[in-house]
Amino acid sequence: MTAVGVDIGGTKLMAVRLGPGGEVDGDSLYMAAPRTAEELVTAVLGSAQRLSGGGEPGSIGVGVPGLVDRTDTLVFAPNLSGAAGARIGSALRVGAPGSRIWVGNDATAACWGEFRTGAGRHASDMLMVTLGTGIGGGVVLEGRLIEGAHRFAGEFGHMVVDPNGPLCPCGKRGCWERFASGAGLGVLARELAVAGGAPGLTERAGGDPEHVKGEHVTAAAAAGDVAALEIMQKFGWWVALGLANLANLFDPAMIVVGGGLVGAGEVLMGPVRDAFGDLVEAGGVRPVPEVVAAILGPQAGAVGAGLMAANARG
Amino acid sequence: MTAVGVDIGGTKLMAVRLGPGGEVDGDSLYMAAPRTAEELVTAVLGSAQRLSGGGEPGSIGVGVPGLVDRTDTLVFAPNLSGAAGARIGSALRVGAPGSRIWVGNDATAACWGEFRTGAGRHASDMLMVTLGTGIGGGVVLEGRLIEGAHRFAGEFGHMVVDPNGPLCPCGKRGCWERFASGAGLGVLARELAVAGGAPGLTERAGGDPEHVKGEHVTAAAAAGDVAALEIMQKFGWWVALGLANLANLFDPAMIVVGGGLVGAGEVLMGPVRDAFGDLVEAGGVRPVPEVVAAILGPQAGAVGAGLMAANARG
Repeated sequence: MTAVGVDIGGTKLMAVRLGPGGEVDGDSLYMAAPRTAEELVTAVLGSAQRLSGGGEPGSIGVGVPGLVDRTDTLVFAPNLSGAAGARIGSALRVGAPGSRIWVGNDATAACWGEFRTGAGRHASDMLMVTLGTGIGGGVVLEGRLIEGAHRFAGEFGHMVVDPNGPLCPCGKRGCWERFASGAGLGVLARELAVAGGAPGLTERAGGDPEHVKGEHVTAAAAAGDVAALEIMQKFGWWVALGLANLANLFDPAMIVVGGGLVGAGEVLMGPVRDAFGDLVEAGGVRPVPEVVAAILGPQAGAVGAGLMAANARG
Repeated sequence: MTAVGVDIGGTKLMAVRLGPGGEVDGDSLYMAAPRTAEELVTAVLGSAQRLSGGGEPGSIGVGVPGLVDRTDTLVFAPNLSGAAGARIGSALRVGAPGSRIWVGNDATAACWGEFRTGAGRHASDMLMVTLGTGIGGGVVLEGRLIEGAHRFAGEFGHMVVDPNGPLCPCGKRGCWERFASGAGLGVLARELAVAGGAPGLTERAGGDPEHVKGEHVTAAAAAGDVAALEIMQKFGWWVALGLANLANLFDPAMIVVGGGLVGAGEVLMGPVRDAFGDLVEAGGVRPVPEVVAAILGPQAGAVGAGLMAANARG
């Protein structure tokens, strides 16, 4: 039986077909991201049908950017507001009555993908942290995916780390994702560029320091730009601060760092690891979790959603 | 078979005997807190013997104020530094070869006590937060005690919530327990008292605003002192901030607040609940965890340790 996994992002939808060992079988399918619940259901069912050769796949798993509750209802989704409140699971079950369905949070799905077939495949207690425009997360403890009492666990990005910090769209101040996401990296970089301290970044941004973005920093840092490397050092500290909080709370064996930013490689992971150990309580006298880069890349969410569906009941 | 639970604090040791249903059977036994590993082992074995009528009890559980690893070694204990590095479990097994032994973190033990016989007995996903001189914690998910990969989970007090905040003895700045523990309450109160804004508190502190402590605030607030009630409002916000972070990360059904400060009752819990819902991500559109006061009081740790031992292997 075919398992199809779908990951719905802010700008695009990606779908994969999984082989019997959970490996991606064939090319990924890309579509524009849906903006409403109807578009979402149509796009998921359509891509599932295409990937399963025209029939109905055995399982369809979907990761969505938001909070999904125990009735598979999308209760909160700032980046997919047209589908907020929609009972996505029910709609998919009507459209594909012969398929096992799993609908859940995208970062939770990515966590399961990395745990089963990626960087965490030898761990039994791991956290996944996805650093992208925002920060998502997932939790695996004792080999089990932990979704929480209402399925809202792993919202790492909205852990407040500075109540006097910048306002977050969620309404609070100083959420971790204000500092340690791609958006946070852009803020750090523009501060320096506007003050004249990062000419290389300003050049990459077409001459306007106000247009410097996170991707300019990671590219410049990889090319050895000193100002960019300094920014990455500072940024890595903010990433490590949140990871250390998570280590103090969950005590995993491993924290897998994924999401778009991890494409920066050691330019990011080096500064994170440098700062991490000292930020964990008693880090000098106890083993601290291993901090590693994700290995499934942008497919992690689709793979994990497909695997969850393949093991779902019904 | 008798189960004995022992809780070792900074100033005293408390031991209880548990009845077959996990209830405390008879009076608690108090002793001065041990300062070395030898004193600890002697005190635990002595109290176990006294509570079991002179014989060796079936189980002995011990909660200690520090990090205990998988070999039952106390690897980090700022308030019991004379026993740091000691293999407590091994020593107890030598001294009481016929007893099942459990040694673990005190707040983890308290969490299990409240989960099995206290405020969390109808929950399956709960966190315990102990507000005392510092802040401890424990995690129960899907009915299982979560101790983490190295048994260091639940160190809630050292979650950094303000990197520019006051220095913590752990070496970091702005740990949650700098703000939301009894020590944090004292700081808030002295700030106001020294500025002349809390004459009632200064009076309770013998006329010296520098001597105002947390317990003066809770007592004055219970008596209706306006300045004290204002401080409790501010303090409750800091408590709620950390609880909301925990809700975003773990998504429990319930957070049980215990420790010495919870004796303040609604003077504390009211402001905490007032602030909590808005601090949880999407708190307006999703169910948030219930925040309740612990009910086992100072016996929670001893009860939980005894219950853990009764279920321990060997």
